[in-house]
Amino acid sequence: MSYLDRIHACNRHDLGHFRPFRVNGVRVGWVRPGFAGELARWPAVFQVSDDGVALSPEIQDFEERTLAVGQVIGALVAEGIISRRHGEPYAVTAGARAEALLVIDRASAPYFGIRAFGQHLNGFVRGGNRLKMWVGRRAQSRWNAPGKLDQLVAGGLPHGVALHENLLKECGEEAAIPGPQAAGAVPVGAVSYCAETERGLKPDTLYCYDLELPADFVPRSTDGETEAFFLWPIEQVAEVVRDTDEFKPNCDLVIIDFLIRHGLIPPDHPDYLALVAGLRGQPGFPAAEDSEPGA
Amino acid sequence: MSYLDRIHACNRHDLGHFRPFRVNGVRVGWVRPGFAGELARWPAVFQVSDDGVALSPEIQDFEERTLAVGQVIGALVAEGIISRRHGEPYAVTAGARAEALLVIDRASAPYFGIRAFGQHLNGFVRGGNRLKMWVGRRAQSRWNAPGKLDQLVAGGLPHGVALHENLLKECGEEAAIPGPQAAGAVPVGAVSYCAETERGLKPDTLYCYDLELPADFVPRSTDGETEAFFLWPIEQVAEVVRDTDEFKPNCDLVIIDFLIRHGLIPPDHPDYLALVAGLRGQPGFPAAEDSEPGA
Repeated sequence: MSYLDRIHACNRHDLGHFRPFRVNGVRVGWVRPGFAGELARWPAVFQVSDDGVALSPEIQDFEERTLAVGQVIGALVAEGIISRRHGEPYAVTAGARAEALLVIDRASAPYFGIRAFGQHLNGFVRGGNRLKMWVGRRAQSRWNAPGKLDQLVAGGLPHGVALHENLLKECGEEAAIPGPQAAGAVPVGAVSYCAETERGLKPDTLYCYDLELPADFVPRSTDGETEAFFLWPIEQVAEVVRDTDEFKPNCDLVIIDFLIRHGLIPPDHPDYLALVAGLRGQPGFPAAEDSEPGA
Repeated sequence: MSYLDRIHACNRHDLGHFRPFRVNGVRVGWVRPGFAGELARWPAVFQVSDDGVALSPEIQDFEERTLAVGQVIGALVAEGIISRRHGEPYAVTAGARAEALLVIDRASAPYFGIRAFGQHLNGFVRGGNRLKMWVGRRAQSRWNAPGKLDQLVAGGLPHGVALHENLLKECGEEAAIPGPQAAGAVPVGAVSYCAETERGLKPDTLYCYDLELPADFVPRSTDGETEAFFLWPIEQVAEVVRDTDEFKPNCDLVIIDFLIRHGLIPPDHPDYLALVAGLRGQPGFPAAEDSEPGA
């Protein structure tokens, strides 16, 4: 395995398996034909055709859209067609989080193929020239990726919560990082990917943060979502990312981004430019403008 | 003006104005029809058709290709069709620098629309919580972008020179940074763009570096390419990038990348995700997978 394989693993998808999901004429997601068939049972809410699924244009504002779609989701969860409710509202948008056309439950996002946003924080410690990184082992009880390794702090980004505020909350819950310390987290960019899963399409964007911690800091899970924390030399973290499936796959990308920004993957690495492009959802290097026109 | 405008300025191009340039069946560049017409005068070297320009398949190895194309370039420079010779060999490749199929003179690269590689270094100084950045003013005598602001160190990457070696050489020539100090430069990623110019197409990739310098360091131009250096608060650098045309346009992108990696453009900036994607040659956000299939 290689770093680039990790990026490819998060970007495996075939849009031919999906049809556009549109709100107000704008594509905001992707649905499987089978799921579109289920949505067709609510013709007052969804207009389903061979071209895709559109939210009925008669449902005009944010609240109405949220309510109408939420009722359908409720029914589909009850029937077991959607796996569960998560309980966090996620923005449905073709652009920035703030431009939400409606919100839907987080666990339904992949069924509708909408872009989900998250925040991942690299917690690291410097000791002389050595760099160490805190990693967490996800609790076996977690619904998603139980037992996998994770960033020190990582979480989804519900609608209507400011980035800064959500990060402080997650820092407190996931690793007992006090507010003033968490406020020192430096936003350092974002990674994007698009994965096809059993439930649907996940075009996700993760805001990334670096937080340098003092040598005597010890994280503690206050929400029970992490069963253990480890402080590993960065070389060990890099090796585990590259050579094993131990990390939750999207966490691999956040670490690869960290390794590049800190000069720990050198620019003469044969995949360097492909990694830099791949972390932003470009499947390969050279960049898009190198495609033949019409290809 | 905005940061995003700076990225768009470096990515303005219409591939409809160009035809593919192929070597060994692989597209390695783009040429204007007018320039293709000139190349047609050397039918033993270039096969010119409505589909584009291909290097003759009878010219088989690296040396032969380099010689044959070099002779044509020499003639076109003599006729004034290519503006000048630079004197640095640039790799012609569809992939990494190391996989060159031939080399051509640097000043000819845009005529053939080949990807050019460079290295740009952000030299910065920390003082308490304040961050300052060294910027240089390019000499009026320079052929390209005279009098514009520039990174402390920036240069093209000739074929066959290792990244590390070329960076140390540029650090010495452009800013008199001693080798051991220059060796502390941290590679932090790359930015890519694709600009259409009078001469042709410039799909460029710049390897980016950060170098923290001591407060008492003072750069000095040893090659006469920089007429003055300034140590500015980073807020001033950011303002000049955002609101003026003072910087050489591709330097703007390297600074925007710096501002993002150092948390100086906050993630709730309305263009944040478009900036992160745009710095890697993606014209906008959402990412490519959000396009409609076939669009």
